[in-house]
Amino acid sequence: MKLYEFEAFQNPRRVRMFLAEKGIEVEREQIDVPAGEHRSEENLRRNPGAAVPFLELDNGNFISETIAISRFFEETYPTTPSLMGATAEEKATIEMWQRRVELGLTQATGDFFHHATEGLGEVDRYRNKEWGENSRKQILATMKLLDTNLANNEFIAGDRFSIADITAVCAVDFAEYLGMPISDSHINLRRWHETVSSRLSAAA
Amino acid sequence: MKLYEFEAFQNPRRVRMFLAEKGIEVEREQIDVPAGEHRSEENLRRNPGAAVPFLELDNGNFISETIAISRFFEETYPTTPSLMGATAEEKATIEMWQRRVELGLTQATGDFFHHATEGLGEVDRYRNKEWGENSRKQILATMKLLDTNLANNEFIAGDRFSIADITAVCAVDFAEYLGMPISDSHINLRRWHETVSSRLSAAA
Repeated sequence: MKLYEFEAFQNPRRVRMFLAEKGIEVEREQIDVPAGEHRSEENLRRNPGAAVPFLELDNGNFISETIAISRFFEETYPTTPSLMGATAEEKATIEMWQRRVELGLTQATGDFFHHATEGLGEVDRYRNKEWGENSRKQILATMKLLDTNLANNEFIAGDRFSIADITAVCAVDFAEYLGMPISDSHINLRRWHETVSSRLSAAA
Repeated sequence: MKLYEFEAFQNPRRVRMFLAEKGIEVEREQIDVPAGEHRSEENLRRNPGAAVPFLELDNGNFISETIAISRFFEETYPTTPSLMGATAEEKATIEMWQRRVELGLTQATGDFFHHATEGLGEVDRYRNKEWGENSRKQILATMKLLDTNLANNEFIAGDRFSIADITAVCAVDFAEYLGMPISDSHINLRRWHETVSSRLSAAA
């Protein structure tokens, strides 16, 4: 089994953090995305979506998409701490928050990076500056939503750490890198960020 | 339990189709999205993302996001036909394809609708025509990817009907409505579309 990634990006970090929380070690190989290596013929065959990370299974099959890779490990190691929930309602609640954060922060910070900044330079084949700038509103609105939610919950999806926290901390850190740190007024989000950042997995 | 939806949209159709495949009946209530009813104070409290569908559970909690609602029913009724996979690899493969289709077709057709056409009129508060037009490329590329994949698979994620097929048929039908029907040259995608459209659930 091998995980193909580009270490600096938020989606590979999500998978590394997921693995660290579950105590799973997987061989990793770097794909030089800024140099366009994700679009090589071989890598497009492995992962037509041309993104990182993607996972090569022992049977030679490939799984791409961060959330699908995480699901593979969640289901393969069901006895380690669950990061995607136990009961039907818990699973659905975690998936709901994961998805909200993915849309409002992961994707929105990605859009900001690729469209409102120089992004990956020529590797980004299409750039729409206005779209990128507009995603700032979504990023700030999602941080506000999370802050409100965290007034009554220790973690994003309730009282247990979950994949929604992983998605969120990776995106919040990327937002800070892009010049959008957590507002001083969002005291709940700041408290949560400090707690989650202190986990060993946050440095994975 | 009650499902809040707007019947004409593709995401509510995904949930109705999922329920029909599993033989589950749920009370439904229409939210008049073109009139802005999804942004009423009450509905924003139920679902801050202001989208449809969302599900009210018997305990009064709300689940939003199509895929989270589907997960709730998948986990609540595990003995009905599985639409999200059985083994770890099957679950991950279905989730990977579901996500590819969601990004490349569901979201891209949504972007085209809201940005390149009149969309929901004044209810759409931000419009970026160039972004909308650009999503056409992604829609056509995703259809091509699906056609290639379906040359060797009966269904999107392999040899069993899954939630990835539900997401795909709802998006492909919406793409046709938007003037992007399946190309005549995509014979595998056409064969798949005919098969899936003939299921009783497709009319749910």
